[in-house]
Parts: sequence; structure tokens; C-alpha cells
Amino acid sequence: MAITTVGLDADDTLWHNETIFRLTQDRFRALMADYAEPEFLDARLAEVERRNLALYGYGVKGFTLSLIETAMDVTRGEPPGRMIADILAAGREMLSHPVEPLPGVPEALHELSQHYRLILITKGDLLHQEQKLAASGLGELFVGVEIVSEKDADTYDRVFSRHGTGPQQAAMCGNSLRSDVLPALEAGAWAAHIPYHLTWAHEHAEPPAGHPRFAELKSIGEFPGWVRGLG
Amino acid sequence: MAITTVGLDADDTLWHNETIFRLTQDRFRALMADYAEPEFLDARLAEVERRNLALYGYGVKGFTLSLIETAMDVTRGEPPGRMIADILAAGREMLSHPVEPLPGVPEALHELSQHYRLILITKGDLLHQEQKLAASGLGELFVGVEIVSEKDADTYDRVFSRHGTGPQQAAMCGNSLRSDVLPALEAGAWAAHIPYHLTWAHEHAEPPAGHPRFAELKSIGEFPGWVRGLG
Repeated sequence: MAITTVGLDADDTLWHNETIFRLTQDRFRALMADYAEPEFLDARLAEVERRNLALYGYGVKGFTLSLIETAMDVTRGEPPGRMIADILAAGREMLSHPVEPLPGVPEALHELSQHYRLILITKGDLLHQEQKLAASGLGELFVGVEIVSEKDADTYDRVFSRHGTGPQQAAMCGNSLRSDVLPALEAGAWAAHIPYHLTWAHEHAEPPAGHPRFAELKSIGEFPGWVRGLG
Repeated sequence: MAITTVGLDADDTLWHNETIFRLTQDRFRALMADYAEPEFLDARLAEVERRNLALYGYGVKGFTLSLIETAMDVTRGEPPGRMIADILAAGREMLSHPVEPLPGVPEALHELSQHYRLILITKGDLLHQEQKLAASGLGELFVGVEIVSEKDADTYDRVFSRHGTGPQQAAMCGNSLRSDVLPALEAGAWAAHIPYHLTWAHEHAEPPAGHPRFAELKSIGEFPGWVRGLG
């Protein structure tokens, strides 16, 4: 069956995201240098984030709250001077960080939008994702924008049915095997993995090597050609 | 034209919300009692919230971050002992607070769902609103759930067109004149205001007295009868 609909992940597929989290985490390490070794601090933060994920979900606001909780923990409830205010400021800067499309993204999306219905499918803070899309200048290329709390097979089934002709006639692409590729394949869609140079620990998964509807691509520039060759 | 679609606000229309924010704010006043008079503290918090609204949007996580920022401010960057940890805990408790439908809500929704397509239209944290809907036991009565970053006329036009037959054949109800009533009327829908006993300062507005598609109702129990009498 011919492909009618193309889904795209946003963070680390269309623009940088994990880099900005890592830079903030570097800044957090520097802020906490008198209290904790980097490895210890990273491990505590990862533990706090994991514990809060079910309650906070994905996004900068939950991350900022987890940074503050980790700081309270590591300073035994006595954070010095401006530490907490500095963390709040770091969170606000993440939310207002400029958005620049990754190389090749505008070209690939323009090409795809001539032939397919483009849907943005992303997790994270609702308002922040909308703001990033607006700031990217890419918003008008999408016929649908779905900001979701979790990406599972049901999500892809629902989104590709709502905005297109179902998952069997849809192709997804993103940087996360766990969120973008495996559940889209499970829903019956095609899916391409385009790695970003960093992956959040929570998103690690094994590639579905040999799956008939899966491709591993080097960059988003290869994606339109791959979609054209399908079905 | 006959009504086909009914939109319902969630917080303070289907279940308590502002009460939980106010209880947390009472707790915040008690935590800060050594540093600030209640009136001064409330004014500072309102100012911080207003300043952060464009960046944080609506919801508990942004509110928690604003509480922490206010605490840093009022203690001049030297919050004692467990203050920040207590605020974090208060935020987590808001996110995991049990959800109980307001009186008359299940009956009204069951009646409406037999005749109309029900759409939940709400602001707030994406994940938290989904969790509250699941916990309310009302989720199956809705054919559509739209968690949005802002409620303006475009929002209602889009949502009632996507899930129904357009705003002209839709009726909205909610506790906020500013978010639920005025923009729905502007989009061309009918709208009923059902006051909650508390209103967040940000949501205050004047009722559109005399508007031909507006009604002021005492409780949600009156809403199904009002909708039946339309068009």
C-alpha cells in the first residue's frame, strides 16, 4: 500500500534537545562541585528523574524540579546562597533557548510535504513543544501536531488514523529506537532510525535488525528517498 | 442547527482543582510564616506566577517552580532547612491527589453522552490531566480529549471541527468565563457558565450578559436540559 502519511519526532530529530539538557547538567555539576563528585551527582540525578518520571512526565519543568530535588538531597537540605535560584534560572533558560533546525531538516521536510501528510509526534511539555515548533519556522509544513505523554503502539495507531489513512500507510522517523521506532513498527507502520549523537539513558533500546519495515539511516537527508521507495 | 457536540472543561467543572491549589498555598503561607505576612507572600507569588506564565504555562509543575522561586525571593536566597524539600513534596502531592467528580457530574455526563459527542477541553500539564481523567472514571464517556496550551476562539473552532460538526453545532460548559465561555462564544458555539466557588485571579472576566448563545447556570445538573432546548 502506498505511503500517505509521514510522522516525525521533534527533539533531537528536527532540532537539538539532549545537548541542551547535557549543557544544563554540566552547569549543575559545576554548581554542586563542592558537594558531590560528578559521577555521584549524575547517578543521584538519574535516580531522582527515574523516580519522578511517572508523576512529572517528560520535559524541562519536571527536569528542573528533579535538579532541585537532587540539590536538596546532596546538600542535606542546606543549599547555599544562590544555588536553587541558579537552578531555576537554568530551567528558564532551557525553556527560552533558541531553536534551530538540525542540518538537512528544512530541505527534507519541504520535499516530504509535497507528497505526504506530515505529522509531528512528540513527548514533552505541551506549551514548550508548541513554542519550539513556532520558533523553528517549520510549523506550516505539518498538517497535524500531536504532543503526547507516552509513545506506544496505540499512540501511533491513533495518530496515523486521525491524521492519515492508518499506520499501514505511514512512515515514522526519529532518533529514539524505544519511542519512535519500536512502537511505530508494532502499530504496523514503517519506521526509520536516524541517530542523534547523544541518547538519554531512558531511551536506550536494541535496534530491530532485519525487521522488514525498519531502516537505519545516517541522516534525515536519506529519509525522503527511503519513503519514496516504499509500498 | 441541532447541537451535535458538547465540550466540557475539566478543572473545577468536573472535579476540584482550585481548592487543591489554595490548600497548597495555605501550606506555603505556614511554611513561610517566619519570613512574610500572608498578604505580602500572596502578592509576591501572584507576581512570580504572572511573570512565568508565558514560559511555564498552566499546571502543577509550573506552580511548584513558582512557589520555589517565591520562597527563594522572600528568604533572600537563604531558605532554611527543609523548606524547599517541603515545597517539592507539596507539588508531588498535588500531582497524586485523588480525583473525585463534583456532585452531579457523572449523571450529567451519562445523560449528555447518549445524545451528543462529548469532548474534554482543558489546559494544564498534559500527563497530569490524562492521569486525572483516568482516575475520575469518566474517560470512556468522551469521544475526544484535547489538552491545550491556551483556550482561544481558534482552539474551539479547531476542536469542534475536528471532533464534531463545527462550533455552530456545539455547546461548551465550564467554570471560567475567560477560558471556557467567551472564546467559545467568539468561535460561534453556545456556552454555559457554571461557577465554581473559587476562581483563580488570572481567570476573572465579566459575564457576557444578554448574549443570545450564553447561559449562566447554577450547577452542571442544569446543563443537559439547557443543551436539549437549543437549536
